[in-house]
Amino acid sequence: MKRSSTPARGMRDLLPQEVILREEVMERILQVYRRYGFERIETPILEHIELLTGGEGGENETLIFKVLKRGTKITSIDKEINESDLVDLGLRFDLTVPLSRYYANNRSKLMHPFKAIQIGSVWRADKPQRGRYRQFTQCDIDIIGLNTIDAEIELIIATSEALMNLEFNNFTIRINDRRILKGIVEYCGYDVVEYDSVLISLDKIDKIGLEGVYQELTNKGFDDTINIKFINIFRDINHDHLSFNDICLLLPNTIEGELYHDIHNVIDIVTSQSQGKYKIVFDPTLVRGMSYYTGQIFEIQHDDFPSSIAGGGRYDKMIGKYLGKDIPACGFSIGFERIITLLEDKKHIIPNKNKNIALLFRSQQDVKQAIINAQNLRSKGYNVLMIMKNKNFSNQLSDLANKGFSSFTVVNTDGTISEIKETS
Amino acid sequence: MKRSSTPARGMRDLLPQEVILREEVMERILQVYRRYGFERIETPILEHIELLTGGEGGENETLIFKVLKRGTKITSIDKEINESDLVDLGLRFDLTVPLSRYYANNRSKLMHPFKAIQIGSVWRADKPQRGRYRQFTQCDIDIIGLNTIDAEIELIIATSEALMNLEFNNFTIRINDRRILKGIVEYCGYDVVEYDSVLISLDKIDKIGLEGVYQELTNKGFDDTINIKFINIFRDINHDHLSFNDICLLLPNTIEGELYHDIHNVIDIVTSQSQGKYKIVFDPTLVRGMSYYTGQIFEIQHDDFPSSIAGGGRYDKMIGKYLGKDIPACGFSIGFERIITLLEDKKHIIPNKNKNIALLFRSQQDVKQAIINAQNLRSKGYNVLMIMKNKNFSNQLSDLANKGFSSFTVVNTDGTISEIKETS
Repeated sequence: MKRSSTPARGMRDLLPQEVILREEVMERILQVYRRYGFERIETPILEHIELLTGGEGGENETLIFKVLKRGTKITSIDKEINESDLVDLGLRFDLTVPLSRYYANNRSKLMHPFKAIQIGSVWRADKPQRGRYRQFTQCDIDIIGLNTIDAEIELIIATSEALMNLEFNNFTIRINDRRILKGIVEYCGYDVVEYDSVLISLDKIDKIGLEGVYQELTNKGFDDTINIKFINIFRDINHDHLSFNDICLLLPNTIEGELYHDIHNVIDIVTSQSQGKYKIVFDPTLVRGMSYYTGQIFEIQHDDFPSSIAGGGRYDKMIGKYLGKDIPACGFSIGFERIITLLEDKKHIIPNKNKNIALLFRSQQDVKQAIINAQNLRSKGYNVLMIMKNKNFSNQLSDLANKGFSSFTVVNTDGTISEIKETS
Repeated sequence: MKRSSTPARGMRDLLPQEVILREEVMERILQVYRRYGFERIETPILEHIELLTGGEGGENETLIFKVLKRGTKITSIDKEINESDLVDLGLRFDLTVPLSRYYANNRSKLMHPFKAIQIGSVWRADKPQRGRYRQFTQCDIDIIGLNTIDAEIELIIATSEALMNLEFNNFTIRINDRRILKGIVEYCGYDVVEYDSVLISLDKIDKIGLEGVYQELTNKGFDDTINIKFINIFRDINHDHLSFNDICLLLPNTIEGELYHDIHNVIDIVTSQSQGKYKIVFDPTLVRGMSYYTGQIFEIQHDDFPSSIAGGGRYDKMIGKYLGKDIPACGFSIGFERIITLLEDKKHIIPNKNKNIALLFRSQQDVKQAIINAQNLRSKGYNVLMIMKNKNFSNQLSDLANKGFSSFTVVNTDGTISEIKETS
């Protein structure tokens, strides 16, 4: 019986040309991050299930691929069992939770502060959609052990430069601080237990607008006077036209002292480094979904894509869960798959393939001469595909051209090769 | 409560210097394989469990990490259940089984013949040992759709060149053919159902010697006359001193016609391409464990490592299981983790780190000037680590030197930087 050859649900095979693009994008990102002194690390794909279900993953914890304990005999279970009897491991759903464990496990061998690059696959058993897969690549940089804004600044300028190295320009960095958001909900008079729920609604502002947020807060049953007070704060804020200081004046008295200076300095220094190629704006409506952020948060928006193409922030309370004492940490993640989608549509950074030559031979008798000629071309720096000449030669040439072999040569009967020509 | 920070059993965290070595090794291998016209592909980590338990994996099929079906409620199971009720996916245990599925699924979009590179992790729930992990990297090339020995020859010379690009020399390629092995056991008079068992014993010759093989065959209860006949064939064969033709004369009449010419030609052409840097020998005791091989098989041996550092062969019957018709295929796999172990011991290909500079600043007031100077150095091609100067400066410098930052500079109070000096 013929077996099914389709990948598992939500998974995909990558074709050679797709791998080439992904490798090129990875290399361009890594090139920039290394220039900023970040070092690449790797953690295992599988982690203890307790690590993955500790609460940092939020919604993602419901999407874990769970691994059956080895040696479990399930041929006849007739008593009540729990999932924890069966499962001990899971596939990582992000790179931040494993990084926290990694730092706690390896800190004595790492630089301080530690600047990590991670590029790797993560898995979420999400409902598959067009362009969204259950295995996908994340690309994160993190600075661990630094409680000053040089961390935020380096993350932002390094990530911006990585995007520019991928030929993205004119993007906008939005910046906010979790403590400002907390100050605003507090000021409006919400109850402490309502804070998260209010911010979850505010987070939808890009999709449903300010009126939609108000509607949702009303539906959640929060006090209408408070809701109106809350909504009105954001009504006049348009970060496209107002400076950081202008916006501060429109906000209640929630940004003071260090908090004010930190955001001010990040915006000031990043702007001075941007050379006008991208901009950074203060956006007090920026929330970012993940619950673990404790300080500044940021996102990068590009006109070509509706949602953000990078996001991150400070999370000073996560590593302490593994280490027993808090360690400041801050990270920025490029939406790798979104970048790939954008570049596939535009096809503007496919690498040069001029070095690819097809070397055709007419029969098995010519293999030895073909190999000698192929080796000779390879030693000159060409990528050489040795291939038997087809009956339908013009079809074969156009196929070779499509697959990136822009030139070809044929082994002659005397063992020499013909002049190198274009395949198309 | 503090959470555990150790990786799951048999898994490991890779430190920055370990990742650097692995990236360098990968890049050097890919560089050579691309020159031979191979194209990199990727398959998902998770495959349908039926695909992984089809029989091609042999022993490895007992070592699969199995994934629980999503949405399975196991809070109170009170009826008899089977594993298949709970499990639908597994982590791949090699790259060959997924490649066969991939080819069947994507062949219309691929070159013919198709030359694939795969470098990726595989998982086996083996008993963890020193230097052996449950997640490890495999590095395979395969040629699909070619039933002639130019496939074998290209795999062998490309893999040899990749090893030389990693500064391995003086290795030995051992070559044999599954059909020769079959001819020998047939000639000796074993029963058809005994063939596999006899070859499994012969496969241990490197570990237990010829007498050990004889003992094992006796213990298995095979006819002693046949066992002696079988053992005696191999007694006089020493491939270090005998040519292919000499060995053929010592073997029973099992190598004829095409079989003879094919091995002869592979040895002849590979030898002519080796320029004396490595050798290829016929070894009729070579078996290779995996059951799916159908024709020539090969292994590469290096004096520095007891077991082989690469292995492969022809498997013309596997893809047919997915496609419905047989497609010839041949592959060669570099023992990536063994190579890494060898290189870590010798440390001879650690990349040049002269471009790494640490830029030290004295206080938060200097951050802006530090960033300006760092950006300037980065634009000149340096990798710059911006870092606060420690009280114990000499300790900090030796730490930086150990981590690969061979030079440093300090931000002066006037915003300029000091002369670049060595950290050690």
